[in-house]
Amino acid sequence: MKYPSHLLENAVNEFASLPGIGRKTALRLALYMLRRDVEYTEQFAAALTALRRDVKYCRLCHNICDDELCPICANPSRDHSMVCVVENVKEVMAIENTGQFRGVYHVLGGIISPMEGIGPADLEIDSLVERVSEGNVKEVLLALSTTMEGDTTNFFIYRKLAPYHVKVTVIARGVSIGDEIEYADEVTLGRSIVNRVEFGDGMKNF
Amino acid sequence: MKYPSHLLENAVNEFASLPGIGRKTALRLALYMLRRDVEYTEQFAAALTALRRDVKYCRLCHNICDDELCPICANPSRDHSMVCVVENVKEVMAIENTGQFRGVYHVLGGIISPMEGIGPADLEIDSLVERVSEGNVKEVLLALSTTMEGDTTNFFIYRKLAPYHVKVTVIARGVSIGDEIEYADEVTLGRSIVNRVEFGDGMKNF
Repeated sequence: MKYPSHLLENAVNEFASLPGIGRKTALRLALYMLRRDVEYTEQFAAALTALRRDVKYCRLCHNICDDELCPICANPSRDHSMVCVVENVKEVMAIENTGQFRGVYHVLGGIISPMEGIGPADLEIDSLVERVSEGNVKEVLLALSTTMEGDTTNFFIYRKLAPYHVKVTVIARGVSIGDEIEYADEVTLGRSIVNRVEFGDGMKNF
Repeated sequence: MKYPSHLLENAVNEFASLPGIGRKTALRLALYMLRRDVEYTEQFAAALTALRRDVKYCRLCHNICDDELCPICANPSRDHSMVCVVENVKEVMAIENTGQFRGVYHVLGGIISPMEGIGPADLEIDSLVERVSEGNVKEVLLALSTTMEGDTTNFFIYRKLAPYHVKVTVIARGVSIGDEIEYADEVTLGRSIVNRVEFGDGMKNF
């Protein structure tokens, strides 16, 4: 593709460097910028550089925040003895949206993935162990993806926490709510039968 | 959705203001920025502001360019008596990619669309008429979208150019190459029969 302007080409290259954005979409986005006023693009650029330059991470849970502590860790009405381990800020937001969790979080910053060259040392696992070793945490709830990488990370953390005799739990795996049994995959369905809960008990929140 | 950081929320809002980018994708893009180094974001922001602030438009064809004239208008080996009227820079690039056109362009900057409040005065139609009135243009090829808006714009331009006795042509409409006749829509198929070309003649370029 030949661009009539180097400025346009540069902008397209930058947009196309984002994940999931191809060159056609990148061109559409760059041309959209040209249709809006100069202030729009300046505000856009400023918001991105401000995020990247001034972003802070909570010193306890490592979630993205504006201060030294994130709003959740700074909230005294949350249960600080219950720590939910998640991969990233997206998962914190997803769990917060359920309204079912009143504890605090620990953001790993990823999961162990030999394929992508991410090992335990690249994640906030040591700081989790340190948090637990201080003795105030009663339960660690592992809420990682239910994939091979998630399971590997779960097991690694479980082993690391073993010396501290803390209760380690993992989110329930089973048939998604609204799913038809007929279409559930075998592994999930099998697990949901093995891990069945007494009627009424496991459903108390719904 | 509650964001743990205002900086993150601002960046997500900006990404989500782009066409075709929802809030989930916007969050993914903002978090991607955080995973890359600071220079990446700064370069990204600089490319966009440079495009928006320093973009130039060719004084002849109004295409985006880096100088006073675009590379096509500045090229003496192009046929300057043949002007192809297009909606935007994307169409210039698409036609250039075909390698079938040796003339020059005239970029309207849109098409007449009462629904979006775009009238003839918002487009580079007067400058096209002026270009033709200078007497050096022999043929104006209308290559706008084959939609109601495109047809309206074609007709408007055709009427405006009538006093200058210039040849006005329009791109062929017919069954796309590679399409099966069975699945072609009725209007296209009907038009392709009415506008049939003598075998061998219309296919000389292929």
